Amino acid sequence: MAVIALRKYGTWMLGILASLFMCMAVAAASEPLPSWNDGATKQAIIDFVVRVTKDGSADFVPEAQRVAAFDNDGTLWAEQPMYVQALFVADRVKTLASQHPEWTSKEPFASLLKGDATGVAASGESGIAELMAITHAGMSTDEFAVIVSDWIATARHPKTGRLYTEMIYQPMIELLAYLRENGFKTFIVSGGGIEFMRPWAERVYGIPPEQVIGSTGGLKFEMRDGTPIIMKTPDLVLNDDKDGKPVGIQRHIGRRPTAAFGNSDGDLQMLEWTCSPPGARLCLLVHHTDAEREWAYDRTSRVGRLDKALDEATAKGWTIVDMKQDWKTVFPKEDAR
Amino acid sequence: MAVIALRKYGTWMLGILASLFMCMAVAAASEPLPSWNDGATKQAIIDFVVRVTKDGSADFVPEAQRVAAFDNDGTLWAEQPMYVQALFVADRVKTLASQHPEWTSKEPFASLLKGDATGVAASGESGIAELMAITHAGMSTDEFAVIVSDWIATARHPKTGRLYTEMIYQPMIELLAYLRENGFKTFIVSGGGIEFMRPWAERVYGIPPEQVIGSTGGLKFEMRDGTPIIMKTPDLVLNDDKDGKPVGIQRHIGRRPTAAFGNSDGDLQMLEWTCSPPGARLCLLVHHTDAEREWAYDRTSRVGRLDKALDEATAKGWTIVDMKQDWKTVFPKEDAR
Repeated sequence: MAVIALRKYGTWMLGILASLFMCMAVAAASEPLPSWNDGATKQAIIDFVVRVTKDGSADFVPEAQRVAAFDNDGTLWAEQPMYVQALFVADRVKTLASQHPEWTSKEPFASLLKGDATGVAASGESGIAELMAITHAGMSTDEFAVIVSDWIATARHPKTGRLYTEMIYQPMIELLAYLRENGFKTFIVSGGGIEFMRPWAERVYGIPPEQVIGSTGGLKFEMRDGTPIIMKTPDLVLNDDKDGKPVGIQRHIGRRPTAAFGNSDGDLQMLEWTCSPPGARLCLLVHHTDAEREWAYDRTSRVGRLDKALDEATAKGWTIVDMKQDWKTVFPKEDAR
Repeated sequence: MAVIALRKYGTWMLGILASLFMCMAVAAASEPLPSWNDGATKQAIIDFVVRVTKDGSADFVPEAQRVAAFDNDGTLWAEQPMYVQALFVADRVKTLASQHPEWTSKEPFASLLKGDATGVAASGESGIAELMAITHAGMSTDEFAVIVSDWIATARHPKTGRLYTEMIYQPMIELLAYLRENGFKTFIVSGGGIEFMRPWAERVYGIPPEQVIGSTGGLKFEMRDGTPIIMKTPDLVLNDDKDGKPVGIQRHIGRRPTAAFGNSDGDLQMLEWTCSPPGARLCLLVHHTDAEREWAYDRTSRVGRLDKALDEATAKGWTIVDMKQDWKTVFPKEDAR
């Protein structure tokens, strides 16, 4: 009786284990990066991951040190015809205009409200700083997070009509997931505002606020009616672009990434910082070559210019994604998220 | 034959599973916080953790939001008779003195080299800034990490003769581990230097560099002979003390902690920021009450003064650790690590 019970229990347990191993086998066999066409680019990514994760390999990187840094604009989501954050600024100014009748005759607000980009540009750095101050400072961090969340839930891309959070690149979402499955911590390192990205980066990219690095404005702790708040101030603490990207990485992560992903000259120093030491490293540039499904631009583009970094990538053998060639799909299915 | 084989396999598998379940039972039954005496303080910690981790409870906090912030000096390791980083500065100046003969007649170096603390203090803020600049800037981040690692591997506490990394509090090490086992991400939020703590915090506390927040000096990306480096500059980007602690938390973590741990007035704003929202929160102060095993100090101490925060903790019902009463042991066994 005991033997029969044991046998039955053993059989049942074997069934459970068989299912478990089958699930594991399926997971292991499922192709990574399904939206990437087979070819040298996809292979370079997979080869790198296999090298650094294979225990005992000369290029093995312990899990705690597997840091991957991603630019955002033009690398994880579209940046044409204009950075999403700039469109946010324009929308915010329009929303706030009713409280500021003086703006109809005050630059750069007057030009912006008339949709005159040249006029806005003519206001120069001080004009841009004024626009940033009015839209990004003078409120608490909690209030700003609500403003951004509300805006991004409804604002739509001027050309495609999609939500901005649906203008993300499906192949890059798969790349983020693939790296995380292989023990990487994924970070955003963007010229965009840190507080502008954090409210939605976790939902859209799976990247938590503490792994979002971006251009950083001043913050000031205050007591308001006995309740502590953190106010956003107009000063710039970190311009997380070009030389500022390795600085942001060091300040926030404190160790050098093993892999870095960008698409423009603003990412060059981050890639140099990541790939200069010996050992297995992955530096990758997304080259926007697909005028039909997305946009085609590089050396002369006003937004996301890719010129010096393209030369250096070629010279150093970094991986260059040819969007048209390498990506089966560009954007996720609409309403997928 | 097949049946016998199956039965044997089943028996073997049962053995494996039995061991596994036994291990799990032992782990579950092992008391958390063994170096804490039973009592209200230990119970407050455990009650908080149970409340926020119990699925379906009104106070449940999703794992991604379980953030715990720990001050370092006086909370995780001893800060008497002087902050460890100040002793590092003194040792560094002595080491560098042979290259600076002019220091024997130049303040604050002359006083420091003579061991005249009053003379150093008399040099005021500009004198301290000069000492910080000479010891913490003008080298690359990689070079500084080596300097700190070498120093902390051998420097010993002036009173106990222990390595500084053995002057950590065993009960707090257990608390860090207990929180992590319960899904918390543990951060350091210290007035001490971010680059001073990162080289050893992972080994000693299990806290990786990206979860270390501290006072932050300037950084500058440079190319040196074609190799990118990040130089440390003397400017102060964040004074991560008092008002600066919530700012550091927002800048680096981007969400409010659920639990915060400190020991001095420098931690007050961090605790206010953590515990002001409704819901289950844990704010805890380590009160140094044990002159025999450690030090006893609070309202009038020059280092780690605990005055306003002690009043506010009492008024708000925050948890106060009475080191003498609540801790079975203070420091880990020597050579334990």
